[in-house]
Amino acid sequence: MTGSPFNPEGDPLALDRETMRALGHATVDAVVDMLVDPSTPCLRRATPEEMAERLPGDLPESGAPLEDLLGILRQDVFPFMSRLDHPGYFAFIPACGTFPSALGDFIGAVLNPYVGSWMEAAGPTRLELVVLDWFKEWIGYPPSAAGILVSGGSAANMTALACARESLMGSMSDDAVLYVGDQAHSSLARAARLLGFRPEQVRVLLTDERQKLSPAHLAAAIDADVAAGRRPLFVAAAGGSTNTGAVDPLPELAQVCHDRGAWLHVDGAYGGFAALTDRGRRALAGIELADSVTLDPHKWLYQPMECGSVLVRDGHLLRRAFEIAPDYLKDSVVEGGEVNFADRGLQLSRGSRALKVWMSLRFFGATAFREAVDRSLDLALLAEEHVRSRPELELMSPASLGIIAFRRRAEDEPTAAAVNARLVAEFERTGRGLVSSTRLHGRYAVRLCAMNHTSAAEHVREVLDFFATAALPDQRVAAEVPSRDATIDREAWLRERSSVDLAAVADVPLFADLEPTALERVVELGRQVLVPEGGTVVRRWETSRDLYVVLAGAVVATRGDRPVARFGPGTHFGEFAALDWGAGYGYARQATVTAEEPSRLLALSPGALAELIGARPELDRRLRSVVRERLADAEADA
Amino acid sequence: MTGSPFNPEGDPLALDRETMRALGHATVDAVVDMLVDPSTPCLRRATPEEMAERLPGDLPESGAPLEDLLGILRQDVFPFMSRLDHPGYFAFIPACGTFPSALGDFIGAVLNPYVGSWMEAAGPTRLELVVLDWFKEWIGYPPSAAGILVSGGSAANMTALACARESLMGSMSDDAVLYVGDQAHSSLARAARLLGFRPEQVRVLLTDERQKLSPAHLAAAIDADVAAGRRPLFVAAAGGSTNTGAVDPLPELAQVCHDRGAWLHVDGAYGGFAALTDRGRRALAGIELADSVTLDPHKWLYQPMECGSVLVRDGHLLRRAFEIAPDYLKDSVVEGGEVNFADRGLQLSRGSRALKVWMSLRFFGATAFREAVDRSLDLALLAEEHVRSRPELELMSPASLGIIAFRRRAEDEPTAAAVNARLVAEFERTGRGLVSSTRLHGRYAVRLCAMNHTSAAEHVREVLDFFATAALPDQRVAAEVPSRDATIDREAWLRERSSVDLAAVADVPLFADLEPTALERVVELGRQVLVPEGGTVVRRWETSRDLYVVLAGAVVATRGDRPVARFGPGTHFGEFAALDWGAGYGYARQATVTAEEPSRLLALSPGALAELIGARPELDRRLRSVVRERLADAEADA
Repeated sequence: MTGSPFNPEGDPLALDRETMRALGHATVDAVVDMLVDPSTPCLRRATPEEMAERLPGDLPESGAPLEDLLGILRQDVFPFMSRLDHPGYFAFIPACGTFPSALGDFIGAVLNPYVGSWMEAAGPTRLELVVLDWFKEWIGYPPSAAGILVSGGSAANMTALACARESLMGSMSDDAVLYVGDQAHSSLARAARLLGFRPEQVRVLLTDERQKLSPAHLAAAIDADVAAGRRPLFVAAAGGSTNTGAVDPLPELAQVCHDRGAWLHVDGAYGGFAALTDRGRRALAGIELADSVTLDPHKWLYQPMECGSVLVRDGHLLRRAFEIAPDYLKDSVVEGGEVNFADRGLQLSRGSRALKVWMSLRFFGATAFREAVDRSLDLALLAEEHVRSRPELELMSPASLGIIAFRRRAEDEPTAAAVNARLVAEFERTGRGLVSSTRLHGRYAVRLCAMNHTSAAEHVREVLDFFATAALPDQRVAAEVPSRDATIDREAWLRERSSVDLAAVADVPLFADLEPTALERVVELGRQVLVPEGGTVVRRWETSRDLYVVLAGAVVATRGDRPVARFGPGTHFGEFAALDWGAGYGYARQATVTAEEPSRLLALSPGALAELIGARPELDRRLRSVVRERLADAEADA
Repeated sequence: MTGSPFNPEGDPLALDRETMRALGHATVDAVVDMLVDPSTPCLRRATPEEMAERLPGDLPESGAPLEDLLGILRQDVFPFMSRLDHPGYFAFIPACGTFPSALGDFIGAVLNPYVGSWMEAAGPTRLELVVLDWFKEWIGYPPSAAGILVSGGSAANMTALACARESLMGSMSDDAVLYVGDQAHSSLARAARLLGFRPEQVRVLLTDERQKLSPAHLAAAIDADVAAGRRPLFVAAAGGSTNTGAVDPLPELAQVCHDRGAWLHVDGAYGGFAALTDRGRRALAGIELADSVTLDPHKWLYQPMECGSVLVRDGHLLRRAFEIAPDYLKDSVVEGGEVNFADRGLQLSRGSRALKVWMSLRFFGATAFREAVDRSLDLALLAEEHVRSRPELELMSPASLGIIAFRRRAEDEPTAAAVNARLVAEFERTGRGLVSSTRLHGRYAVRLCAMNHTSAAEHVREVLDFFATAALPDQRVAAEVPSRDATIDREAWLRERSSVDLAAVADVPLFADLEPTALERVVELGRQVLVPEGGTVVRRWETSRDLYVVLAGAVVATRGDRPVARFGPGTHFGEFAALDWGAGYGYARQATVTAEEPSRLLALSPGALAELIGARPELDRRLRSVVRERLADAEADA
């Protein structure tokens, strides 16, 4: 250590070189053993009580030997989690790093570069630019595009939305509108909420029967807003949706956005790196037309968390959106020269996420990564084929960018949901893998996402064989029995009240079996709306979110000039918009509703509905079942 | 590898156990050598051209041996950056990790837990809760407080602001107002901008002569907003400002906020971990009264980037603010039970930042960290003493939480600025350390921030001796010579124009020496404002941002009932608010200005001013020099 400036006398946190080497080697050996431990289950759960007992919260004043700490991690921490890199991990979004990536993270943690300014980190900044250039090339972006590595897809989507707003509007404006398909990732709702977009500024649009956002549907929604004097700001398309891997029709959406001055963002957090392969590039055709793109290296580029990225085609917009310097200096730094990454996103302090990407891509070479992605695409096709070949299984969604959905066949929907949920849980308990579930067009589906380079054909077959062959107990699910707290003489109770509304509400099937206090609450929370003949209750595309119950009269729902439904007394409409899609946003109205005759409606706000549902969860089930029934109609039209 | 599920046939990115061990050991050895290399300068810069030559951007299809990659990093990447852990690094905010912390990051990168949901990561989630409990205890927060580890102070401040808004208002509202002292970190401006707060919703408040936010000043600003029907939402106080280490009067600010229903946030990103020591805890007294606190472990808790944290005293508010689930499920999960960290912040995919904190704190024990922080506090006091003992040096700001400011004495301000800027650059070139500069009360100051556990008394003395003794060439700075593009017969030029305004503008000293086209532009961009006698131009605390030039008449500025200045023809006022504090926000007006007699003013918007300054930078210098002159008055009143 002689001569090094880094170990002066009295430093209480310094270690000498030989000690560091020894600690490093011991850690490498221990963690490699944990990595390849053959007894590792795919997921092991634990209760908060168990974890509190295993890991008490005290912090001793004195230190502890490394081996003790590694022992605690091995015994009490790492067994209790899912191994996202397990070959049988097909749930949610798998994540499988490479060992050289982890070495990149380690090197960064030891040397700790500050990659916020060129001045302080010319080398690491250049490394990040190199990595971003690879990404740009893969998706067909021009050299003038710019990007930044961030913590993940949530930060990337937020950065893109902020960049669009700053570029097209400057500071926030009430008339800006955002459009997302209902298959968009929840991080887009969260980003919109965080950035101060109010419920009336977000249009959630129904996707079509292939779970894709329809360009005509989008165009109609935007045109309605423009006609109402609002400004279409941002459209989020999916470059591989999380749910089914669906890719929205990007070239057509780009045209719609271009014609209307809106910013097109493609969320390729999950699927974007499929562009490394020929098949993936074809599937993602048009991504290069987007104004911004999210890509997560910690997903399909096999990097450990946390590593996301956002690319902006017109690169200088990214800096303009985030630079904090006074306005009059905004153009003083030439892009392509001394890049300060702190000027391209939220973070000021930031390390080198590029190191792990660079280390792993250079160590294995690009070909190995292409092969790994190709293998996943093959596995999804293999899974689809296997599902089609097994009569016990039903294909719910074909292979798309590594994802398929299927389920064990059952005689009806409730039985299928119960049986498959049970199989998902049982498969988890085998420790040999994990799948997750979703709903497609309102139907329960088991979702298999093949993305780990560790996964092979045998692992896919193992899951599907399990679902096809697992013994089932009595699959019959008892018809749902509404709970009744007490037998109530409703008539007698009603006679005591003079309110006509209460009587009318009690007759509504949606509220059937609600006890009197709940019915009374409906009346208290509801707002009576009187509509003259020909009067409009809601307009298509608007974001009002009330649920309406028809108490008297009749209303008709139309799309364009076409009537699509009629609602008479006791029925309800508007449940799409009333239910929460995420972060307080709801679907745009699917139809215009006008009164055929003078009508009396009961309107329930989302807040009122939330309270009722909180007290009586069966209301939620009923509403969602109606949504499912009406979904097919609406999709056909989307 | 037999028996492990992790190395199936055909995985193109798999490595066997022995290979991983060997790569790991080689990396440990190489990076430890880089860490302790005695030839490492504190900062080495490089141009974009040099870096592009050293690191070309190609990605070979085939791989490369690890030793080649480590060679590139050693030769072409890591030499070109600042070593934030260098014992002589006293610039900006130093950052010095520990080796066990880096091992924690490495372990996390290899095993890659998803620390977003309890179900998938009970062990790593518990580890993060343990670490957050330590932080809560250190700052005196109750067990019911909750927190989350994030990428750094920027994300933490943004999270706190979003949490406050969601908790107090729900979605965004135009009447919400934010208050920050002018010493607040720029990340607060960026967060406000990102979250959709418009310029009129942010009050930048002048701090007092000790750079602290005055409670009376804050109360007056809030009360003015309340009287105008606005809602005070969020006050950001500094728990150690980045500039001078100043701690705002937290107990008094908490009282002001509490009485007015505003959320108090303390940004302790830099200084908060001083609470580990007795002295620090005293300095930060009252931090436990804040509604939320930012603490950055990657600063004064010696963790590698990226590791920040935010704590919220009323813990359940954090989850309520970020959970994306429908409203009616918000209370279904009991806090203290199965914590899902993805519900407490922006990120969904997230790794374990807790591992490095836990590893290093447990390895060295709490005492070693207390000693390290105490050492930095001692170093700052030593530096102050040393400055006071050297007649060549002038103390600009006394030691506060590890920061002092000083400068080499010079005969006047311009000379001092030039001489010290030159010494800062020369000291950088020695490679033995780095300091940064700032402006305090408008005066140039050299800032020394002692925070690295590697730094000892000798390193502090080395800096100060250098500044005291470095030979100076002729220190005399030539008086600033306004540039003149051409000799212009202004009178002749004016005769050609009939506009009275142009003539009036040409007589304003602020615009002296502007060439005719620039003067013409002033007239084009400016807006003439006619004010009757007794009419009000601006009101104290409002956020209008125009700069005013008096063309005719006279106006008087008052605070309360006290006149503080009078402005006659040719003078200007409002420059505080007109200049950009950050992200488009400006100071709240310092005084109410009314017309003593009928007056004619020229108003320049911030955008117009930015354009003029962009073309004529001397305008900026003149305005800022006026700001400096007027600062002392305003501060005395703050």
